[in-house]
Amino acid sequence: MAGLVRFGVSIDKDLLEKFDRLIENKNYTNRSEAFRDLIRQELVKKEWCEEGEVAGTITLVYDHHQRELARKLMNIQHDNGENIISTQHVHFDHHNCLEVITIKGDSKKVRALADVLRAIKGVKHVTLGMSSTGKHIH
Amino acid sequence: MAGLVRFGVSIDKDLLEKFDRLIENKNYTNRSEAFRDLIRQELVKKEWCEEGEVAGTITLVYDHHQRELARKLMNIQHDNGENIISTQHVHFDHHNCLEVITIKGDSKKVRALADVLRAIKGVKHVTLGMSSTGKHIH
Amino acid sequence: MAGLVRFGVSIDKDLLEKFDRLIENKNYTNRSEAFRDLIRQELVKKEWCEEGEVAGTITLVYDHHQRELARKLMNIQHDNGENIISTQHVHFDHHNCLEVITIKGDSKKVRALADVLRAIKGVKHVTLGMSSTGKHIH
Amino acid sequence: MAGLVRFGVSIDKDLLEKFDRLIENKNYTNRSEAFRDLIRQELVKKEWCEEGEVAGTITLVYDHHQRELARKLMNIQHDNGENIISTQHVHFDHHNCLEVITIKGDSKKVRALADVLRAIKGVKHVTLGMSSTGKHIH
Repeated sequence: MAGLVRFGVSIDKDLLEKFDRLIENKNYTNRSEAFRDLIRQELVKKEWCEEGEVAGTITLVYDHHQRELARKLMNIQHDNGENIISTQHVHFDHHNCLEVITIKGDSKKVRALADVLRAIKGVKHVTLGMSSTGKHIH
Repeated sequence: MAGLVRFGVSIDKDLLEKFDRLIENKNYTNRSEAFRDLIRQELVKKEWCEEGEVAGTITLVYDHHQRELARKLMNIQHDNGENIISTQHVHFDHHNCLEVITIKGDSKKVRALADVLRAIKGVKHVTLGMSSTGKHIH
Repeated sequence: MAGLVRFGVSIDKDLLEKFDRLIENKNYTNRSEAFRDLIRQELVKKEWCEEGEVAGTITLVYDHHQRELARKLMNIQHDNGENIISTQHVHFDHHNCLEVITIKGDSKKVRALADVLRAIKGVKHVTLGMSSTGKHIH
Repeated sequence: MAGLVRFGVSIDKDLLEKFDRLIENKNYTNRSEAFRDLIRQELVKKEWCEEGEVAGTITLVYDHHQRELARKLMNIQHDNGENIISTQHVHFDHHNCLEVITIKGDSKKVRALADVLRAIKGVKHVTLGMSSTGKHIH
């Protein structure tokens, strides 16, 4: 990380003590790293609210016994190849699979893809993991 | 605010520039105030996750033509007097009312009260506004 | 509520049993009311994502000893009169006040107003309670 | 899906029309599937609030040039082997990697693991994708 800038911050003593305890519980070893993380969290939230490039995951839980489901999911993923990087598949038990699709692209398109997958019969649950390409969060 | 402490924070130049732009868009005039707000946000989130005293609002939308509804809501509020500070009532149109109940008390009890109100027939929507007594966020 | 429509829903037995237990814990006495609430929740979420009329609360925690703060808050509220319905003020202790502003109007304007209030020095915390005018959630 | 139960639900005509439009926009072809998804969403939320088995993803963005970082992340993942199923790694550009860890286990332990990873210097962002083993959401 080239180009570190050091500057002063003024915070009420009591508030700072509470913050120090909070970040200690969260395993931070110094305040600057905790502040950087708070900033990055806000920036990633913003990336997902605006139209622009995001990255993250779409996680599906489904029953692979559901007729034609695997083929349908495969087809949709192929049609959205420009936003899909890779897929990770886990067998939980005789019925349940977890499929994690790593995605990158326009936030609106990624959200729409999650909606399409969620509506398919046999797909039990879809979560969108909102992460970042890292490009704009140094 | 007695007892301000000043300390140094190191942040990558590019990340800091993005943060400065972000907080400028949110009307902040200095970084310290923005940092204090980020800290307080985390502390208030924590107050609501743990068992302890919180404050905030329960906002109801309901149709006051619904039979017996106003009386039911009144009774529940009286039974929960220890957690309710005051109530603000707004007539939106011929049918819809907004009722804002200011609450204070144990986070679990307040959540349970919101659940009770939400389940009542005729209550269209209930939101929990998670704020704080301010005691622990200087 | 005129115009009730009755229709059939098919749900797996085990899933339905879990739903019944969930809504019983949340005090619902019948499934239809629980379904109506799930629908309304989705509709209110949508109202806040799109540009359109919303209603709800902005809750502030602040220290009224902060110099000039009360006057500043008052001025901002007057400048935003078209979106503010009323204000409820609670004194928590020697230092902390809770102020609940009932708001109605365009979702973007209401969010912007919350941002303006949050950035003011001495305002410790701002929460947006996302509710509805009830017009579009029967 | 063995054991489908069919039952009647009563909903105000206007509310139902809005729901039908909403789910059509989300690609649902029938109401029952939309209701099942709303139920499952609530059940998965509950799984993550209580102590019990959950599944999902922890997504990290980091700069692999950061000294010792890759080794540290590897060690932590090995120490938490019981909760980690697999890891998917994507190179975004010269600096940024996305690492998606598929997790399963007690909700508290999984959250703690995400906190540990977030606090490490060089890890820019951590998201928790809250999904399910599917066992309890038929």
